[in-house]
Amino acid sequence: MAKKKKSAAVPRSKKTPSAATNARSRKTRDRATVKNIVDLTRGIERSALAGRDPGIEIPTRSLSNTRYSKKRRILEMGANTQTRNLFNLNQARKFMQTTLMASGCKDLVEAGKTLSLRGMYYKSLHSIPGTKEKTFAGQDESDPILEDLEVTLGALREELHVFAKKAGTMVGNITVIDSGDSIDCRRMGSGGYAIPSIVEPDVVQFKKCEADFVLHVEKNTVWSRFNEDKFWKKHNCILTEGGGQPSRGVRRLLRRLHDELGLPVYCLLDCDPWGHYIYSVIKQGSISLAFESQRMAVPDAKFMGIRAKDYDRYELSDDVQIALNDRDKSRAKQIAAYPWFREKKHWQREIKHMLRNGFKMEVESLITKDISYVTEVYVPDRLRQEDWLD
Amino acid sequence: MAKKKKSAAVPRSKKTPSAATNARSRKTRDRATVKNIVDLTRGIERSALAGRDPGIEIPTRSLSNTRYSKKRRILEMGANTQTRNLFNLNQARKFMQTTLMASGCKDLVEAGKTLSLRGMYYKSLHSIPGTKEKTFAGQDESDPILEDLEVTLGALREELHVFAKKAGTMVGNITVIDSGDSIDCRRMGSGGYAIPSIVEPDVVQFKKCEADFVLHVEKNTVWSRFNEDKFWKKHNCILTEGGGQPSRGVRRLLRRLHDELGLPVYCLLDCDPWGHYIYSVIKQGSISLAFESQRMAVPDAKFMGIRAKDYDRYELSDDVQIALNDRDKSRAKQIAAYPWFREKKHWQREIKHMLRNGFKMEVESLITKDISYVTEVYVPDRLRQEDWLD
Repeated sequence: MAKKKKSAAVPRSKKTPSAATNARSRKTRDRATVKNIVDLTRGIERSALAGRDPGIEIPTRSLSNTRYSKKRRILEMGANTQTRNLFNLNQARKFMQTTLMASGCKDLVEAGKTLSLRGMYYKSLHSIPGTKEKTFAGQDESDPILEDLEVTLGALREELHVFAKKAGTMVGNITVIDSGDSIDCRRMGSGGYAIPSIVEPDVVQFKKCEADFVLHVEKNTVWSRFNEDKFWKKHNCILTEGGGQPSRGVRRLLRRLHDELGLPVYCLLDCDPWGHYIYSVIKQGSISLAFESQRMAVPDAKFMGIRAKDYDRYELSDDVQIALNDRDKSRAKQIAAYPWFREKKHWQREIKHMLRNGFKMEVESLITKDISYVTEVYVPDRLRQEDWLD
Repeated sequence: MAKKKKSAAVPRSKKTPSAATNARSRKTRDRATVKNIVDLTRGIERSALAGRDPGIEIPTRSLSNTRYSKKRRILEMGANTQTRNLFNLNQARKFMQTTLMASGCKDLVEAGKTLSLRGMYYKSLHSIPGTKEKTFAGQDESDPILEDLEVTLGALREELHVFAKKAGTMVGNITVIDSGDSIDCRRMGSGGYAIPSIVEPDVVQFKKCEADFVLHVEKNTVWSRFNEDKFWKKHNCILTEGGGQPSRGVRRLLRRLHDELGLPVYCLLDCDPWGHYIYSVIKQGSISLAFESQRMAVPDAKFMGIRAKDYDRYELSDDVQIALNDRDKSRAKQIAAYPWFREKKHWQREIKHMLRNGFKMEVESLITKDISYVTEVYVPDRLRQEDWLD
């Protein structure tokens, strides 16, 4: 059985806040966001009135300005910023776009509505009067501006009422309240509860949870195997999947399940650089948006497998082998050099072992042993032996 | 308001079948599937014992063997078949693979378990004793064999207990029973009910439904807009999305909602060849698997928009225009030539209008008018005016 880190009972304070309380906390959050946006533009206004070139100070979103905090065990942004000025030919367009996005987000928050990234692009798109120039050439221009705005305002995208594509499913021994509806994840049939894009506490609350841990699997086909075998019932857990690299909604939910309910998070991913990378994103955050790690990363998340040594220890047939190609190999070396993997001998061994094997293995490959080998033998073994990588 | 074709009340016979009834109908279905598989192999056995070359007669899955039935308004397979023999160097490998897949499906059905396509690949993969030869070179070899098996046995993939990747979400005025769990789609929060891969009647039953129609939208970001605006509550409907081209589970569910509950199905898709193609697949079935249309296609489905004339009639700004490239143009002409579009003047006009416009438009582009324009003006207009393409 999994080690129970602390009681998974939902603390009284977390239990079913009233609709009024949720509405209040949403309002508080929204008010803070709008104030942030207004403060940003006040600065621009002041400069303009004082006859100075208006500018916005934007934290630099680059690998060089990303650092791994050993203490907090997450990726963090450094202190570097760059100024974006109006009276600078190279910066004027981006300056305009940044204020336009800020204004769009303010509209959204004030209207109490949310939009997708694509929606934000359309919302902010128009021809600049008297010209044939569009405010944005495409969504590939608007998305990075929104990310700039996030880090500048110190707000999560979700707080700006913007959401990414929804993906991921959950079942298990927990009841959540989503937008006022009580959802019993023990009775979600074969389909499951579709994890929303925005799972902030004023949207999703935890009501009743007996689960001892969260098992997160990479693919929804694997999730279906676990759900069909009622794994979450037998092992008293919550079962999530992220459809490959988990969406922000899924990552934020994992973080909240871990932080607020004290549930260990175990990840069952493929034995390949992509699986290792997904684990890295869940655990430490993504490099491109290091800023969000503080509220999305789960530094305590464990990697349950598939392990490179499984080929021998489970006497798998060579049918499970998928040859590593050159790209896989160089990606594996890159990942091994990440600061949070570099200093961990067990991770260095794991990646070296995979490279020595010369092949990847997918979770599904355990089907070569038996249809339900993964739910009846493999994961129960890991839990009983408390055998995972940290 | 949408025209109510017939009462959407669930007929008494459809109401909450008991768990015992479901188990019985599942058993009946499974028994028929296993009998089918056994019959297939009996034929092989008979040939072998009679000293004849064992062969399997497989319906040809090609465009040339696909025809549009005007009467049933769906794609159907023609009568052409090809024989796959054991003692033929060109066919022996595929013969082996077909029997292997059949055996794998029999195992699955008898075990009462389901597997993904990837899972089936692994299940049937091994080295042929005494050689270095694998039974399958990859999933791209096993997937078509499974499709061959479907048409040969006259069974849906789902009846063989094999499922495709899950995608799609549902909310609205309906309660379904999924694997014994009652799921109230009126109370699914912002996330929704994740539509399972297999929605056959012994897995998913309809319990209580007041909805007047189904609104199916292309993308989950658009779905979120409709759900957030509680469109399904105001317009008494069911709201589904398929994450682009809808999965088999979503299509089969739409078909069942239409057939069993008499609900009209309205599709809100982009004004581009891809949107038209998605509509075509929902309505008439996919060309590559025409066989499945008889249980998946919804010939009565309506195309609600986006329409090429919307640019003028809604006075949209040129921000919504995405230029058609050469590939779009030739694809549009291909689609216009599909038999079920070819004879419909309104569809010929629609596609010509789009080509004349020279641009595509996405559902999201209505955001340039207002965040909720699509839920508050556009779709209500279509419903009030009963204005859609058939």
